[in-house]
Amino acid sequence: MTKLSINRERLWAALEELGRIGKYQDEPSQLWGVNRLALTAADGEGRRWVVARRTSLGLEVTVDRIGTVSGRRAGREALRPVLMGSHIDSVPTAGRFDGCLGVLGGLEVVQTLADARVTTRRPIVVAFFTDEEGSRFGTDMLGSAVATGRLKLEDVYALADRDGLVLKSELEKIGFLGTAEAALSPPHAYLECHIEQGPILRAAGKEIGVVTGVQAISWHELTIVGKSAHAGTTPMELRADAGVAAARINLRLREMIASGRYGKAMRATMGAFVPKPGMVNIVPGRVVASVDLRNPDDALMRKAEADLIAFYEQVGREEQVTVGWRQTARTESVPFAVKVQDRVAAAAAARGLTHQALVSGAGHDAQELAHTCPAGMVFVPGEYDGISHNPREYSTPEQCGNGIDVLCDVLLSFAEEGEAP
Amino acid sequence: MTKLSINRERLWAALEELGRIGKYQDEPSQLWGVNRLALTAADGEGRRWVVARRTSLGLEVTVDRIGTVSGRRAGREALRPVLMGSHIDSVPTAGRFDGCLGVLGGLEVVQTLADARVTTRRPIVVAFFTDEEGSRFGTDMLGSAVATGRLKLEDVYALADRDGLVLKSELEKIGFLGTAEAALSPPHAYLECHIEQGPILRAAGKEIGVVTGVQAISWHELTIVGKSAHAGTTPMELRADAGVAAARINLRLREMIASGRYGKAMRATMGAFVPKPGMVNIVPGRVVASVDLRNPDDALMRKAEADLIAFYEQVGREEQVTVGWRQTARTESVPFAVKVQDRVAAAAAARGLTHQALVSGAGHDAQELAHTCPAGMVFVPGEYDGISHNPREYSTPEQCGNGIDVLCDVLLSFAEEGEAP
Repeated sequence: MTKLSINRERLWAALEELGRIGKYQDEPSQLWGVNRLALTAADGEGRRWVVARRTSLGLEVTVDRIGTVSGRRAGREALRPVLMGSHIDSVPTAGRFDGCLGVLGGLEVVQTLADARVTTRRPIVVAFFTDEEGSRFGTDMLGSAVATGRLKLEDVYALADRDGLVLKSELEKIGFLGTAEAALSPPHAYLECHIEQGPILRAAGKEIGVVTGVQAISWHELTIVGKSAHAGTTPMELRADAGVAAARINLRLREMIASGRYGKAMRATMGAFVPKPGMVNIVPGRVVASVDLRNPDDALMRKAEADLIAFYEQVGREEQVTVGWRQTARTESVPFAVKVQDRVAAAAAARGLTHQALVSGAGHDAQELAHTCPAGMVFVPGEYDGISHNPREYSTPEQCGNGIDVLCDVLLSFAEEGEAP
Repeated sequence: MTKLSINRERLWAALEELGRIGKYQDEPSQLWGVNRLALTAADGEGRRWVVARRTSLGLEVTVDRIGTVSGRRAGREALRPVLMGSHIDSVPTAGRFDGCLGVLGGLEVVQTLADARVTTRRPIVVAFFTDEEGSRFGTDMLGSAVATGRLKLEDVYALADRDGLVLKSELEKIGFLGTAEAALSPPHAYLECHIEQGPILRAAGKEIGVVTGVQAISWHELTIVGKSAHAGTTPMELRADAGVAAARINLRLREMIASGRYGKAMRATMGAFVPKPGMVNIVPGRVVASVDLRNPDDALMRKAEADLIAFYEQVGREEQVTVGWRQTARTESVPFAVKVQDRVAAAAAARGLTHQALVSGAGHDAQELAHTCPAGMVFVPGEYDGISHNPREYSTPEQCGNGIDVLCDVLLSFAEEGEAP
């Protein structure tokens, strides 16, 4: 058959429409962003919008017990399906592409097949996984990790957000506490198209990223306890300033990167820090802060973690504070299936699109699915150094269309395969 | 007449009783602290308790238009009164001595005079000034600065707290929007007994501090604007991390102290810092932070301010962020009247109490009153390195009693004086 191409205008319109749900005006930039935190009313509205779109495409929709929603298109044979997916929840200061491109792109592929009256050999499923971002309940890749068995449903149900609202109740409140089994029966393959969320493809002038895997992620929540004291009278040498300790750890992260000892691809960030009492004239007696480490090399990640934990102890001693820490997320690096990488590269080349292999800087649902089936990702570049988790996040209609065309090609290659002998 | 001595048990019981109003259990330490932020319900309850005590002493109570409450005891002659005062509002994590010792000590002096049937030549007034701490509306010494004309009533009325609640309405809500003129008619002298809130007297083993003046204070509110971005993908060199910039400024404060360039008595603190969006996996795009500088030397303070502002610009350039700042408080150093200092030292010596001259590390209402009349302070030492603005704040019944005995002696010396020729 002739090569199918997706409808770029239709894909773009869908991204714009879903992007209006949960939109907010960003204070510093005055830009319109998206705030669709998992299991909020806005997430519920976004979910219903996607479900309606699936229903209109004739897909069989199921909601499972962790709220992950799948839409199934039958194949010619009763073989294991090819799964396309991503997420539609967002961080609080998001753009409209992160996750949504993979979900709406998957639906665009299905619609393209329908328009061309193509029925694939294998069934096709398009899923969005619950709470990929982890911004609200502190655990990312939540739905996909439950699907593949890394997280237990009962543990996840009990997670609470900062206001003490419990995940299971929140899922029920928005009407997405489904009844389907949350454990996923392994698909034939898993494919996800996503924005790069970084500057590499843009800087290299490449149109398609062939993702080789996902880097390791380690999150620490620090609780630094010093002694609150009067800012005007307490001599510096008698202070136990939890804020100074947090500042030293923050700057240590950058020194670690600059040292080169943990590889060039290491990233480290202190994104959250809350002092108590947090008053201008009181030395902070307590700070709760976060640390986010990423590294594509598992051995270098372990070295970075060990060195950082030793530094927590050093700062504690030197600042007369205690630095408590707990691991709030930890994933090893995940390589993607070589055959998916090869097919993404081949599809890009066949369409005359420039492409490059790269490791993913962010975590993705694909890293969970990779434990159950051949899995892989297609990246598209982003403008403005690929900025993401920010209202400036932007990929052009052309960039998005290229990615979903490649997704469609790779989908078809897997969907026409029989079982391996 | 024989020397009067105050009733230490009665003073202590009053401190304990007032300290029960607004008490809370401190989370890190499990100690009971006081949270009686200005113009909250707890402050209102504390005010009514002090007013009832004054009324029972037969004082004539007036509430002025900024909510400062005075109790007057008539003298033998219609001369300008001697004023004793301090404050009863607190920071959110306070002990029960800061301010309260001066107010309850002043009332104890009056009660001691009443018990001894002594009527002084001059009237005696005991006042508590509104919002000395500045913790809620961002401006400290608020009531005393209105009394002496440094702040204008209409400007102060319009101040709002973090929740947008306006000072005048809050004053009205707790029933302390009085009708008496807020501008103070200059008293004959102003005397304030206060805990040192620092370690100097305790370390020197001295029982009484003769306060020579109050150091200069400078508060900055910083608004650091960078670019929020994905923590897992954004290379370090492309970041504009407002949190890193805040951390560098925090550590710079300590480097400035260590340099010795601003004198040994310089203090500097970053007490507040709030990142936006404040998520583990997002580079902070914006931080609002505070800086508190103290120095007894005005010239060294100006040098520190200029150097710090230059550093804000340097950090802005180096971190690709903008560091905006505004002055939220600024007072010059204030010397106290030599004759008050001399009488405090003489009174301590006459009672066989060891004493030492020292500059106040904290701001006090006395620094405002010093612009209108001879003013001065008596300090008493505190346990635990004189820790204050913390539930561990503690001075013994003996330490408090010594201070109020000296206050009584100095009060009598001024209250028996006629007008200068």
